[in-house]
Amino acid sequence: MKLVPLFDKVVLKQLVAEETTKSGIVLPGAAKEKPQQAEVIAVGPGGVIDGKEVTMQVKAGDKVIYSKYSGTEVEIEDEKYVIVKQNDILAVVE
Amino acid sequence: MKLVPLFDKVVLKQLVAEETTKSGIVLPGAAKEKPQQAEVIAVGPGGVIDGKEVTMQVKAGDKVIYSKYSGTEVEIEDEKYVIVKQNDILAVVE
Amino acid sequence: MKLVPLFDKVVLKQLVAEETTKSGIVLPGAAKEKPQQAEVIAVGPGGVIDGKEVTMQVKAGDKVIYSKYSGTEVEIEDEKYVIVKQNDILAVVE
Amino acid sequence: MKLVPLFDKVVLKQLVAEETTKSGIVLPGAAKEKPQQAEVIAVGPGGVIDGKEVTMQVKAGDKVIYSKYSGTEVEIEDEKYVIVKQNDILAVVE
Amino acid sequence: MKLVPLFDKVVLKQLVAEETTKSGIVLPGAAKEKPQQAEVIAVGPGGVIDGKEVTMQVKAGDKVIYSKYSGTEVEIEDEKYVIVKQNDILAVVE
Amino acid sequence: MKLVPLFDKVVLKQLVAEETTKSGIVLPGAAKEKPQQAEVIAVGPGGVIDGKEVTMQVKAGDKVIYSKYSGTEVEIEDEKYVIVKQNDILAVVE
Amino acid sequence: MKLVPLFDKVVLKQLVAEETTKSGIVLPGAAKEKPQQAEVIAVGPGGVIDGKEVTMQVKAGDKVIYSKYSGTEVEIEDEKYVIVKQNDILAVVE
Repeated sequence: MKLVPLFDKVVLKQLVAEETTKSGIVLPGAAKEKPQQAEVIAVGPGGVIDGKEVTMQVKAGDKVIYSKYSGTEVEIEDEKYVIVKQNDILAVVE
Repeated sequence: MKLVPLFDKVVLKQLVAEETTKSGIVLPGAAKEKPQQAEVIAVGPGGVIDGKEVTMQVKAGDKVIYSKYSGTEVEIEDEKYVIVKQNDILAVVE
Repeated sequence: MKLVPLFDKVVLKQLVAEETTKSGIVLPGAAKEKPQQAEVIAVGPGGVIDGKEVTMQVKAGDKVIYSKYSGTEVEIEDEKYVIVKQNDILAVVE
Repeated sequence: MKLVPLFDKVVLKQLVAEETTKSGIVLPGAAKEKPQQAEVIAVGPGGVIDGKEVTMQVKAGDKVIYSKYSGTEVEIEDEKYVIVKQNDILAVVE
Repeated sequence: MKLVPLFDKVVLKQLVAEETTKSGIVLPGAAKEKPQQAEVIAVGPGGVIDGKEVTMQVKAGDKVIYSKYSGTEVEIEDEKYVIVKQNDILAVVE
Repeated sequence: MKLVPLFDKVVLKQLVAEETTKSGIVLPGAAKEKPQQAEVIAVGPGGVIDGKEVTMQVKAGDKVIYSKYSGTEVEIEDEKYVIVKQNDILAVVE
Repeated sequence: MKLVPLFDKVVLKQLVAEETTKSGIVLPGAAKEKPQQAEVIAVGPGGVIDGKEVTMQVKAGDKVIYSKYSGTEVEIEDEKYVIVKQNDILAVVE
């Protein structure tokens, strides 16, 4: 089963927050914020959307930061994904 | 009786949430979220909508993920449907 | 007395919800939802609206589904109508 | 004293709700809804408004239905008027 | 000291509500609504605003009706003014 | 240290509200409203903003009235400024 | 690890609020407002965004004032950043 996004939609998979901070402190559950880093799983074709040409600038495999509160969470075969518009992706992490 | 959507509207029929998870656990009612997967039943003609050319990219029979909280539920002859704009469809499930 | 809608407005008359379900059960008042099916009574001329060309795609006599919470209810000579924009009509029922 | 509307504004005078229904029943005050029928008193010149050409399609003397909650009530020499945009007029009553 | 409005702004001075109604009844304070009639004091130059050509259609000295809740009240040398966009002016009173 | 505004932004410095009214009455603190008069300190270059050409019409040294609730207060070296868009400036005081 | 912003996004790093005011008073924690000054760390490529050409006017190393409440805070390797649209940057501090 595969998700094929429409238009400027991008399928993301959140990266698991690391359990320890850089300085080695183990974070209890409540101290771990919802991570905003995600890996790009699939990218829509872009094209003319709402009368405007949109070029896709991310590709599958990119690690990205995306905007808090954006996107729709979906669950397919017990795997969770977030589908966002490309415009809700803020930066690529290299 | 048949629903013929106007413009960029798409008639969807929600797919029934499966009663057991992949690992075989039977979910009680309350644990089953409103499913966001649906089958496309009928697709509007697209065309110039609000001054912008819209091409329809889904077709009857497609399985799709659509945006939570979008769409209008309608009931025709005891069958329930959801009518959404194509733009509220996030991805096709293949 | 006749309602002549302006621009992209459409005059609808709600269809009466049927008193029994397909399986023959008589529904008490509270179980009957506000019906969203309506018959088109009169259609505006379309034309350039808000700087955009709008073509009317419904005609008097069509049975349509329209968007919940849209439209304005009016009462003329003890008859109730709903006036909506064509864009609030989701599908024609054939 | 005369109201000369600007742009696409239209001056309306609400029609008095009739005191009896068609079947002859006298309505007590509370049963009478704010009437949405009005007579057109004066019509703005139209023209280019917000970058878009607007043609006026109603004229003084027309009886019209206008959108609930729209418009501004004004009182000039103890006469009450409602000033709406032409776009808030839903239909002409003929 | 003089107020010179920018763009499509218009400086208004509210007209004092008359203390008696036409029929001679003296209104107590609470019965007097905030008057919506005002005199135009100064008019911006118009021109291209937000990418759209705006022509000014009112002039200093005009008596106008303006939209409730619009505009910004300013006080210059103990005189109160309201600055509105021309689009918030509904009609000229002649 | 100097603030150089981008695009159509304007740096303002609020003018101190005078302590006495024209008639000589000294106002206690609570009676003094947040003044809306300000002096223009620096003006952005204008240009094409959000796809629309913007020409700057105010200059450093102008005394202006700006819209209540607009702008962002900033503090640089213990001096307070307000940065607004030119469109939030209502009038120049001459 | 490096943040590469998309489109008109800009990665900022907040400047630490100085512990003492110009006059030498040490501010307790609660008196220190969230600083709005930040250093530009990385700048997106600009280009056609939402159908409009955007030119980037800030560069890495610039000290800028940005709009309160805008932007998304992200944390990468225990370093905190704010990602804003260029349009939320109000002024460069020189």
